[in-house]
Amino acid sequence: MRTSQLFTKTRKDAPADEEARNAQLLIQAGFIHKEMAGVYVFLPLGKRVLDNIAQIVREEMNKLGAQEVQMTVLQPKDIWEKTDRWDDKKVDNWFKTKLVNGTELGVGLTHEEPFVDALKDYIGSYKDLPLFTYQIQTKFRNEKRAKSGLLRGREFTMKDMYSFARSEKEHLELYEKAAKTYAKVYERLGIGESTYRTYADGGIFTDKFSDEYQTLSDVGEDTIYVDEAKGIAINEEIYNDENLAKVGLKKTDLVQKKAIEVGNIFPLESKYTDALDVYFTNEKGEQESIIMGCYGIGISRLVGVIVEKFADDRGLVWPANIAPAQVYLARLGEDDAVVKAADELYEDLQKAGIEVLYDDRDVRAGEKFADADLIGLPYRVVVSAKSLEHNQVELKKRTSQEVTLLASKEVIKHLKGSE
Amino acid sequence: MRTSQLFTKTRKDAPADEEARNAQLLIQAGFIHKEMAGVYVFLPLGKRVLDNIAQIVREEMNKLGAQEVQMTVLQPKDIWEKTDRWDDKKVDNWFKTKLVNGTELGVGLTHEEPFVDALKDYIGSYKDLPLFTYQIQTKFRNEKRAKSGLLRGREFTMKDMYSFARSEKEHLELYEKAAKTYAKVYERLGIGESTYRTYADGGIFTDKFSDEYQTLSDVGEDTIYVDEAKGIAINEEIYNDENLAKVGLKKTDLVQKKAIEVGNIFPLESKYTDALDVYFTNEKGEQESIIMGCYGIGISRLVGVIVEKFADDRGLVWPANIAPAQVYLARLGEDDAVVKAADELYEDLQKAGIEVLYDDRDVRAGEKFADADLIGLPYRVVVSAKSLEHNQVELKKRTSQEVTLLASKEVIKHLKGSE
Repeated sequence: MRTSQLFTKTRKDAPADEEARNAQLLIQAGFIHKEMAGVYVFLPLGKRVLDNIAQIVREEMNKLGAQEVQMTVLQPKDIWEKTDRWDDKKVDNWFKTKLVNGTELGVGLTHEEPFVDALKDYIGSYKDLPLFTYQIQTKFRNEKRAKSGLLRGREFTMKDMYSFARSEKEHLELYEKAAKTYAKVYERLGIGESTYRTYADGGIFTDKFSDEYQTLSDVGEDTIYVDEAKGIAINEEIYNDENLAKVGLKKTDLVQKKAIEVGNIFPLESKYTDALDVYFTNEKGEQESIIMGCYGIGISRLVGVIVEKFADDRGLVWPANIAPAQVYLARLGEDDAVVKAADELYEDLQKAGIEVLYDDRDVRAGEKFADADLIGLPYRVVVSAKSLEHNQVELKKRTSQEVTLLASKEVIKHLKGSE
Repeated sequence: MRTSQLFTKTRKDAPADEEARNAQLLIQAGFIHKEMAGVYVFLPLGKRVLDNIAQIVREEMNKLGAQEVQMTVLQPKDIWEKTDRWDDKKVDNWFKTKLVNGTELGVGLTHEEPFVDALKDYIGSYKDLPLFTYQIQTKFRNEKRAKSGLLRGREFTMKDMYSFARSEKEHLELYEKAAKTYAKVYERLGIGESTYRTYADGGIFTDKFSDEYQTLSDVGEDTIYVDEAKGIAINEEIYNDENLAKVGLKKTDLVQKKAIEVGNIFPLESKYTDALDVYFTNEKGEQESIIMGCYGIGISRLVGVIVEKFADDRGLVWPANIAPAQVYLARLGEDDAVVKAADELYEDLQKAGIEVLYDDRDVRAGEKFADADLIGLPYRVVVSAKSLEHNQVELKKRTSQEVTLLASKEVIKHLKGSE
């Protein structure tokens, strides 16, 4: 895409009404627009990042054999009353609304109940299980405060998956299979090395632990204790001698770190399936409880986490797999030769399947370099009269200061090789 | 996908609580689940159809140069008060909700105001225009009744696009360019021949006409008068001598038809941009109004329209471009030779890039045939002991009764050729 065809622009200063660095930078670079606190519009570049993350998550869930569906935002009261999660005193962050006739509705904040209810028509026999199903959906939580940008929104995009198993043993097999998939997702997102599967509180339904996926970050709301050799961690909230013994971690091997949650998986036992009267019939014809697991990944939150994690004092830094494009192509000057060479390289890069943001504006070099840094694509390529003297262009990684001079053709080879 | 891995099942009878044929058939075939009246979950097969339609629409909007964004569902009151569309007496189908602190919010029913508001930061000069931007988004309308299945939902998926132009002349150029794109979209969806650009009332903002895209259908809520030679139509609501003269249509050339709206495009003049104080500065440095156009396509509604249009007494019939898969592969019997041949064909079809639903269940042939018809994929392929006697399989189009015997390899050639 040419910058002249992109309707967003960067701005010189961070917005005054944002405390969170992720929102400040994303607004400054034109990736998002603040509709209200905790509620953000994704503009063209931001939408691409969001879609790239969603697509990686979708591909990995599909490989796991999970079936994608789309639940509804509007929620009927009855299924939530059965699990005692309707009353505002029980769940304090519902948004609620009403039909014209006065019937109260919920605005979906999570989807355990509707998933179980929708499966009711399809699960009867042991032959119908086990299964994984998931959605990538907009969710709504009526947070009292929303000052963390995309890290904790009132409206946000989430992938939520559920497993349904015939026994505790089968549940554990699915659970560990999903955990492997989660590791793969974070690896593909470019945060694999700094994301730890972390023992955490199992919540009210189980005496087991849940697993959080925590990414190391200075702005993290959580404190975790990491065993770097084992590659796992334990959340401060359950950090005591008894629990350490249970999970086989030793105090002396652990390092305290700040981290932010980027996903979680947890056992739901049969709380929801029992409450909504969904059972299966085993091979002997007996009715049994269905054991459920829940697997969340915050898609829009990940945009914020990745900004916080990689951004530097010059702007955003996107991992290649989720960047809105791979190359920021800047032409310096409006000389015919420069324009021609840059236009040709733009075409050639696209033909080679490399996504480019082509800065074809007639502005100073300094402004182009500042925007390239702020927007944070993995590579910057510069075409100038000076570089063309030797039939070359300049290539620079966003994360490095080193500038390499290369022939145009070599740029494509270099970029394809580095994928 | 193997039927045994798909968690949905078909059911023998239509649900008793649905009047609309589209919802009856889609529920019976396991494509959707009714959450409440006018609010449907998309199950795996339904989600694929929805995504296929959305992807065709997205590709065509992108070709037009439109930039995709994602607006928010939660809406702040102030921007809607500026255009006088907040008050329930003015707009009677809002869903509204509240923040914890009591601040009223809207649940997005359309997005003219937020689009204009988000662009405010980016449009200043004549150089920033013209532009197209769009989203594919879930929308909410508090309909009093919702008995038409996917044709008129309380929660539904829509593509809404907006154009922003510097003059009436430029607006018209964009408008006609978008109209061409719309024709292409309906053609790709398989309803091009029966969808007419239709003159309709321009609404309250303009004395011009708007354009509806109307697909002929017996369940249509609209009556249109079609000029088949010209390939255009006029809505009954503006059907009078004066208007016919204006648009150059003659009564004697027109045929009355029932139709259903599958999209609309209309001029918004500068109502929203002026109301929200968004102007541009022309080349002389003078402030001018921005002329806006609006372009909608009901994505989930199209699922319902296409069901109503093509379904027959045996079930759903999907056009190839939006079908959840191309082939229903049924194996008859559990003989080793049949299983082996069917398994191999399943692999080969997938390798050839042809999506297959493989009915690997151990059930009667009649049940498999009934399900193949109900689910409505374009082709049915049958592997049986009988067909294998001559090393052949049976191929049948969903829309034909003719069964052809072919060698397995020929099936793939045939299907690739017919794409």
